[in-house]
Amino acid sequence: MPHSNISVSASRAFVEVFELPPTGSGPLDGMRFAIKDLIDVAGWKTGSGNPSWCDSHPPAVVHAVCVEQMLKAGATGVGKTVTDELAFGLLGHNDFLGTPLNPRAPDRLPGGSSSGSASAVACGLADFALGTDTGGSVRVPASNCGIHGFRPSHGFVSVAGVNPLAPGFDTVGILAADADVLARVAVCLLACGPAPQAEPASVRLVLEAFELCDPEVREALGGAVRRLRECFGSRVAEVSLRDVVGDEAGGEMAAWRETYCVLQWAEIKSSLGAWIAAARPAFGAATAASFALTDQLDRGRVAEAVGRRESWFRRLRRALGPADMLCLPSVPALPPLRDDPLPVRSPGSGGASSYYPRTLALTSIAGIGRLPQVSLPMGQVGGVPVGLSLVAGHGQDAFLLEVARRLNS
Amino acid sequence: MPHSNISVSASRAFVEVFELPPTGSGPLDGMRFAIKDLIDVAGWKTGSGNPSWCDSHPPAVVHAVCVEQMLKAGATGVGKTVTDELAFGLLGHNDFLGTPLNPRAPDRLPGGSSSGSASAVACGLADFALGTDTGGSVRVPASNCGIHGFRPSHGFVSVAGVNPLAPGFDTVGILAADADVLARVAVCLLACGPAPQAEPASVRLVLEAFELCDPEVREALGGAVRRLRECFGSRVAEVSLRDVVGDEAGGEMAAWRETYCVLQWAEIKSSLGAWIAAARPAFGAATAASFALTDQLDRGRVAEAVGRRESWFRRLRRALGPADMLCLPSVPALPPLRDDPLPVRSPGSGGASSYYPRTLALTSIAGIGRLPQVSLPMGQVGGVPVGLSLVAGHGQDAFLLEVARRLNS
Repeated sequence: MPHSNISVSASRAFVEVFELPPTGSGPLDGMRFAIKDLIDVAGWKTGSGNPSWCDSHPPAVVHAVCVEQMLKAGATGVGKTVTDELAFGLLGHNDFLGTPLNPRAPDRLPGGSSSGSASAVACGLADFALGTDTGGSVRVPASNCGIHGFRPSHGFVSVAGVNPLAPGFDTVGILAADADVLARVAVCLLACGPAPQAEPASVRLVLEAFELCDPEVREALGGAVRRLRECFGSRVAEVSLRDVVGDEAGGEMAAWRETYCVLQWAEIKSSLGAWIAAARPAFGAATAASFALTDQLDRGRVAEAVGRRESWFRRLRRALGPADMLCLPSVPALPPLRDDPLPVRSPGSGGASSYYPRTLALTSIAGIGRLPQVSLPMGQVGGVPVGLSLVAGHGQDAFLLEVARRLNS
Repeated sequence: MPHSNISVSASRAFVEVFELPPTGSGPLDGMRFAIKDLIDVAGWKTGSGNPSWCDSHPPAVVHAVCVEQMLKAGATGVGKTVTDELAFGLLGHNDFLGTPLNPRAPDRLPGGSSSGSASAVACGLADFALGTDTGGSVRVPASNCGIHGFRPSHGFVSVAGVNPLAPGFDTVGILAADADVLARVAVCLLACGPAPQAEPASVRLVLEAFELCDPEVREALGGAVRRLRECFGSRVAEVSLRDVVGDEAGGEMAAWRETYCVLQWAEIKSSLGAWIAAARPAFGAATAASFALTDQLDRGRVAEAVGRRESWFRRLRRALGPADMLCLPSVPALPPLRDDPLPVRSPGSGGASSYYPRTLALTSIAGIGRLPQVSLPMGQVGGVPVGLSLVAGHGQDAFLLEVARRLNS
């Protein structure tokens, strides 16, 4: 449940607060939504979490298509929210704009890059929020802040008016405090009716993904997995990702992360490299280190990574029928403590330094597979939230959201 | 067959000529390819067919992902090709850069916006070319210039490093003089193996699409349709688009065009509107008129158009099994004469003024359905080429290309 006594300023979630009235009436009547500041709102600069970006780009002249859809369905926009710089981060830390409050764990990071959107919802300052998710930027903050997060199938929600990061993975996602709201908003965004039924044929617990996690996270999700078994009985079973995709490398989470990172870094350099070279923007230290990785990438590896991505995409498409699901932890570890050194992106030797590689390994499954994923706030470790994720087949978003609703009821 | 005695300068197809050596060896060894100047080549400005765009943007620092893929597979880049301004045009006319030669019909327009890419291939100056196709920008110039053109399923080829026009429809496509080369390049770009077999279960001639065409175009494609019937017998049958999508509006080609245009114009305004408002670029008269339409769009119509698009997308997905195809003319009319007034985009009362609405009606089927389409040079009217198009299900690109190869052999 969201908190209700936190002020806008205490949340540190917003870069702008306004009231954007609905342009129609529909299923979102009366709802208030926040908008990640990577998404255009007419008349405002889309700051992308970086002052140099903000300074070197003109204001938006129209709302992004996804914002138009929400307003037309009856929702009211309440403000623009903090993002990690240029959406290239999973921590929810921003040297320029501060760290939005994680109300469920105030000493920990909210997760990013849709940090302000997650914080606004968790603080009760919006019924839902629009975020973007390239490599986990909705799913991770949803998990950290104890709310619901949805990444749609890639390519089914318009990204027009949303600043690109890595277009082969970029999506517009949703954060919401409950599964009912999440489904209602998603149905508008996807322009699909609710699924006729939500009886999964199979729910496969991805062994390698659970093994990757800290023991406390696995334990914290034990109750959630029991709930799945109560609901769906013997259709819940463990599976190796190696068997799902039918090759040896598919069983190594590091191979998923590596394939994802080569493609993400190549696309980020294509999307933002020319601007960075010309504008020489000021970056926070962690952001600068992340962009340095995209500079160091050997682009001769791109074609091979495309090959592996498409091979796994096709195998996942074959493996996941219209009512099949994968289940995995949303994150491998609790949200990092605010006062600790920030986790770094390049693989380290374990411990805190393995936060990024492990998190990206988990989130890359849906990314590579273009699959929809929902993170459900079904676990906690000493009050700190941890999400359980369900992943469905490509284009089976309505089914996925209905199953999430059912689990929540 | 491409011409072989036309010089680079006589083709007027290129904005830059260079030699970009391969970075690997593979199925495209020894092949030479041209690159639409909407796609990044490291070290060069991506001019997008408009001098103001070129002046206000820095040079690319890396190749677009699609260019990396071609180089790695063994191909050599030979130059950057003319595009209609910002890729927003189907004519192949550019007030600033001139009109690339249509060698098969020198008194007619080559078609756009991948005009230079089509011209370079048709003039024999490249084995294949990369283009982009949002609303027909590969398919239309392929048809006009008498070569093969391929628009992939939306979302399966990286658009990183490609200037966006309308991201919900933008694709990177291929132009080639023969179906063998087309398939070989496409298999690299899509990172898929060739389809195991290419035996269509059904080939449905879309009645409304043929009815929309000038009688001479229908007649010119008569032989191509007979060839289809020879190859595939009784599996070739006529169908109404109304029955394919199962609603009354689906039988009206104007409804397809209208749905497409509302979304395309909304996304174009989101992608380029802020830059246009801030930079006040110089446009040719026809381009200025096109962008004026995006300004006049009532964005309150966007949500409804998204709803119709997604409804038709889902119905096409159900209707087209893995071996089903639609067949339709690539264009409704011969390429406009170079010396005639340019066709205008907004619907007129018929005749030449209906060129744009009718062309967009035909191309919008694959656009709305996110479907792959190949235009085959199978017809002519007094020597002027007209293409026949095949459309397959979402993600069935390899199958589609194999059928195209078979028809060509």
